[in-house]
Amino acid sequence: MKSSIYLDYAAATPLDPAVRMAMQPFYDDLFYNPSATYLAARDVSSKLAAARAQIAHWLGARPSEIIFTAGGTEANNLAIQGIMRQFSGANVVVSSIEHESVLRPAKNYDCTEASVLADGTIDLVKLQSAINDQTVLVSIMYANNEIGTIQPVGEVARLLKVVREQRRRSGNKLPLYLHTDACQAANYLDLQTARLGVDLMTLNGGKIYGPKQSGVLFVAGHVTLQPLILGGGQERAIRSGTENVAQSVGLATALDMVQQSRHEELKRLQQLQHQFMILLTEKIPASVINGSRKKRLPNNVHVTIAGTDNERLLMQLDEVGIMAAAGSACSASDEEPSHVLKALRLSDEQAQASLRFTLGQQTTLQDIERTVEVLQRFTA
Amino acid sequence: MKSSIYLDYAAATPLDPAVRMAMQPFYDDLFYNPSATYLAARDVSSKLAAARAQIAHWLGARPSEIIFTAGGTEANNLAIQGIMRQFSGANVVVSSIEHESVLRPAKNYDCTEASVLADGTIDLVKLQSAINDQTVLVSIMYANNEIGTIQPVGEVARLLKVVREQRRRSGNKLPLYLHTDACQAANYLDLQTARLGVDLMTLNGGKIYGPKQSGVLFVAGHVTLQPLILGGGQERAIRSGTENVAQSVGLATALDMVQQSRHEELKRLQQLQHQFMILLTEKIPASVINGSRKKRLPNNVHVTIAGTDNERLLMQLDEVGIMAAAGSACSASDEEPSHVLKALRLSDEQAQASLRFTLGQQTTLQDIERTVEVLQRFTA
Repeated sequence: MKSSIYLDYAAATPLDPAVRMAMQPFYDDLFYNPSATYLAARDVSSKLAAARAQIAHWLGARPSEIIFTAGGTEANNLAIQGIMRQFSGANVVVSSIEHESVLRPAKNYDCTEASVLADGTIDLVKLQSAINDQTVLVSIMYANNEIGTIQPVGEVARLLKVVREQRRRSGNKLPLYLHTDACQAANYLDLQTARLGVDLMTLNGGKIYGPKQSGVLFVAGHVTLQPLILGGGQERAIRSGTENVAQSVGLATALDMVQQSRHEELKRLQQLQHQFMILLTEKIPASVINGSRKKRLPNNVHVTIAGTDNERLLMQLDEVGIMAAAGSACSASDEEPSHVLKALRLSDEQAQASLRFTLGQQTTLQDIERTVEVLQRFTA
Repeated sequence: MKSSIYLDYAAATPLDPAVRMAMQPFYDDLFYNPSATYLAARDVSSKLAAARAQIAHWLGARPSEIIFTAGGTEANNLAIQGIMRQFSGANVVVSSIEHESVLRPAKNYDCTEASVLADGTIDLVKLQSAINDQTVLVSIMYANNEIGTIQPVGEVARLLKVVREQRRRSGNKLPLYLHTDACQAANYLDLQTARLGVDLMTLNGGKIYGPKQSGVLFVAGHVTLQPLILGGGQERAIRSGTENVAQSVGLATALDMVQQSRHEELKRLQQLQHQFMILLTEKIPASVINGSRKKRLPNNVHVTIAGTDNERLLMQLDEVGIMAAAGSACSASDEEPSHVLKALRLSDEQAQASLRFTLGQQTTLQDIERTVEVLQRFTA
């Protein structure tokens, strides 16, 4: 029997044993700097190239379109700043429920936030009217880290295509790029960039059973990016610094694992998620599920239990070995209520009565049943 | 018997087995996001704090002055851009032999390069005259990655102190900070920041038997930095992104190891270095050692062998199992001659006849003897 129940997979995933094994040689014999010229280093360099090709495969991309970064946050910053710095006075449009690593860099430029509907999906009409003649970048996350809502990225891409066509006819020569933060989506959803119609996409190893601070920014061949971190010219001069081959190989292995099994894992978790929601509403009548029920990651259950205090509840859960979250771990230390819940028009009181449970590979039906049972006791 | 001789420790160091062991738990049970609120995550968070304190100890710093970054290149960029972005029109002074990760970001601002003397040490008179009323940052590396020259950082600090005093009297309110890139120095030299008089210092795990893309920027308490990477607010909002606790703990362990043994290792390597240089000049009369002989890292032997071609020599060495470099691995793929050797007034021809050998923990006298013997054969 497991001694504890981990329901915070959106904050961090354990390392897949296959990932650990794939990384091991680079902490051992294969420590060479991949930019060095001797054979042993070129072997390391070729293994980095293989990892890049593996990732490119799942994105339907060319290996040269895969830039390794130190994490999802860095990749998001590189996307936003790397585009926006090139166009003085240009505009960026984001949804109001983006991750802080998109929102904060975006707000350093002329930034328009497009609001979301009550279920957390982007309001396409509002999004369209948010785009102006100076907009060069739209960044809409693939799936939300707090409420699990999946955004219609393909529809956004079609909308941008129309705008680009209008611009072409009106002589507006500014580019218009689409970036998506796919950090939480990569476990369960299709990442084929051409199918999605995105120009830039962020991946994060730390959320897909790979190493933390391993990340990728997909940058379509036609997109020019200004680097944030300059130096020796690694990663096509877009991200300098001696490569962390261990982590890149780890990320590639992790992506392989989750993408290969995503259909079965999606089905399995959707059943658990369904059961979780049913039990919650049955046993705890004061509970309300937030976010879209249909367009939702299969591992996310976000609930408001009226009249409760989430901090207190989390402590009580922790005491019986259940680990969950009030929201994004990134801002867990903040005292501010979540901007995502605010965007859903939840009151501060409702936000403070909200819990996020995120399921993963080790989650069982017993875990779910036990969690609801305990919650029922604590909220009685 | 070792099957190969590795003499490229400045490009990459193997991971210390103690470092690997220290990192292991974080790839296993301790995978939690340190920002999460449950006990298991707070345990991870406290281990990150302990790593920070360990590093602070060797720098004579407060833990809050230690910012974890993803590598030395990122830390150098954070230092340069993080200061310079705050002062529009301000000037930055660097030596002409800084690493690319200092030079390239610096050149995006009003940047003055101070030249070095023929032995590679900074020309303090030129440095003084390079500083103008708009200078807010001086960045002088502690020890050079190509020629091993140790710079008089303490003397630079005293010079800046005088300038600051003059500014105080003349009413110039601009700050004047001193940054040093200590990536190559940390194995052998004193890192006490107060003794050195630096405001910012870069460390790199990948050069001290720790993990690659683990880094630290020391930022003295009185220095305000603008972050490059925005998001969840980790690292006192100076470097956002879920922490890579494994790598930070690995870096702290590596720094412990090298700083604890640095006096003995310095002595041991100085003897090998001395022997290497003697043998080279004895057996290969056309060889000339570059850089200061006295103010030099104990593990660096940089030599020009007139009339030879370093690319060809490196391939020949590689064939017999000896791994060395023509210069910095970072720019190994470039065709440009090294800016460091240019700064030493070496001709392109001399630069192309130059080799860098960097010694380390596994290097023996036999390795040195064998290398010179082979070099003698190939250059005869």
